[in-house]
Amino acid sequence: MSAPTPEGEHGVRLTVAYDGTRFHGYQQQDGQRTVQGALEGAIAAVTGRASRARAAGRTDAGVHAYGQIVAFDTDKLLPPRAWMMALNAHLPDDVSVQDAHVAEPGYNPRFDATEKTYRYVMDLGLARHPLFRDRTWHLGPQVARQFEDPDQVNHHLALDVRAMRSAAEHLAGTHDFRAFRAADDERENTVRTLKRIDVIERYANHDRLLAIEVTGEAFMKNMVRIIAGTLLDVGRGRITLAQLSALLGADADRRSAGPTAPACGLVLVSVNLGRIRAQALR
Amino acid sequence: MSAPTPEGEHGVRLTVAYDGTRFHGYQQQDGQRTVQGALEGAIAAVTGRASRARAAGRTDAGVHAYGQIVAFDTDKLLPPRAWMMALNAHLPDDVSVQDAHVAEPGYNPRFDATEKTYRYVMDLGLARHPLFRDRTWHLGPQVARQFEDPDQVNHHLALDVRAMRSAAEHLAGTHDFRAFRAADDERENTVRTLKRIDVIERYANHDRLLAIEVTGEAFMKNMVRIIAGTLLDVGRGRITLAQLSALLGADADRRSAGPTAPACGLVLVSVNLGRIRAQALR
Repeated sequence: MSAPTPEGEHGVRLTVAYDGTRFHGYQQQDGQRTVQGALEGAIAAVTGRASRARAAGRTDAGVHAYGQIVAFDTDKLLPPRAWMMALNAHLPDDVSVQDAHVAEPGYNPRFDATEKTYRYVMDLGLARHPLFRDRTWHLGPQVARQFEDPDQVNHHLALDVRAMRSAAEHLAGTHDFRAFRAADDERENTVRTLKRIDVIERYANHDRLLAIEVTGEAFMKNMVRIIAGTLLDVGRGRITLAQLSALLGADADRRSAGPTAPACGLVLVSVNLGRIRAQALR
Repeated sequence: MSAPTPEGEHGVRLTVAYDGTRFHGYQQQDGQRTVQGALEGAIAAVTGRASRARAAGRTDAGVHAYGQIVAFDTDKLLPPRAWMMALNAHLPDDVSVQDAHVAEPGYNPRFDATEKTYRYVMDLGLARHPLFRDRTWHLGPQVARQFEDPDQVNHHLALDVRAMRSAAEHLAGTHDFRAFRAADDERENTVRTLKRIDVIERYANHDRLLAIEVTGEAFMKNMVRIIAGTLLDVGRGRITLAQLSALLGADADRRSAGPTAPACGLVLVSVNLGRIRAQALR
């Protein structure tokens, strides 16, 4: 084992993946099963001490993660892989640590997260699919209305992906996104910057899956899910590009945007930590 | 609704997808939860009559399917999409009908299946991943031995994919596959033809996933899973290409091939019905 450089109290920064289906979101809540609760339980089991698990960003109930970033403080010294293995031995099967690094004590990834990438996946198949359930938004009921011939079964919803891509270009950049946040979100500054927004057909080589990937500095409550719902409405002709442009302004109204797409289709793909204060153990 | 052409008793052919995790395989067994049992329950609920659900091929406990083919007989007349919707309304969330067609009475897809395609997916990540669990074979314990530096955590198992592709080329074609079947499989004719076998890196755009896709006319018990285990052993240097060639002969022994890869990594992708006897309703 290598000689650890930090002495006494230090931070540990983790990359964490989870299947959000059975969690009531990231943040600890009394009596609920949360990702934070699961992580803090595993940390206490490994270190013998209660520590707070600080995340780069909270995720809602049902939302998944490939690359959530979480940090905690401890005086226990372990090499990175030993942290990963030890914590995973105490974590349930729907959450796991993918990577570990030493950090400064008190390190909070929320303050270092310069950008986050989310992916929203829609299942355009007519029938629900068991291998995509809980990981995608199955548009079945919406699809049915698009099919006039009841004898045609083996088809997918035909969205206007070109219009969706044009809409995505409109959304990219810095705008007032007040129409793209939950009705109960009351923060004053609603200007945000989307660095990148892509519409991906045949996601993961499946004809029936369509993904929307968004990278931004910061997001408001439900923002990615409302963007997904709005792009869907563009794709099925319910919102025109002119209407979309009108949604990006100080007069815009939440009710003119698309629906809030359900949590199960959303995954936090990665968090970019601009200024990594973490130190490698060797 | 269109006018149905068949009168009285006729067959219905379904394309069925399932998540095999909670099923004890396709075939009905007393007291076990099976795909056949779930389908026959839904058919009885829709038609009011017990019917046998005949599959193109049985799958083992834990094995998944995108395109299993199943047929049953009925005197109830419904358009294809109505069959799909009605059956799905009575099926649990881990199995669903993707497509439906009318067929001759007594139609058995097993006799028409000219080839089947299976995919086996391995997860080469060091830590287990919650979003890939139950759908892949996580090679974690094998991986750990390949990493000499305990501080390196964010890596994947490095397999010799070139050697695996050469091995796949050896396996393609017509051979005596007696070494590639379960020890309790006692059939006499062990010659089979693999039409295609591909090794796919970065399966579904995930760095850590490696897939093996096999198309063949017919397979013996555990054959695809033993092929997957043997290609893994080639990839990690435990079986040489010369040893692999020796496995394809009448003197070959099951114990010289690789392990039987676990069921959870296997999916029946599609069944090719050479001579479709099904009739469209219109």
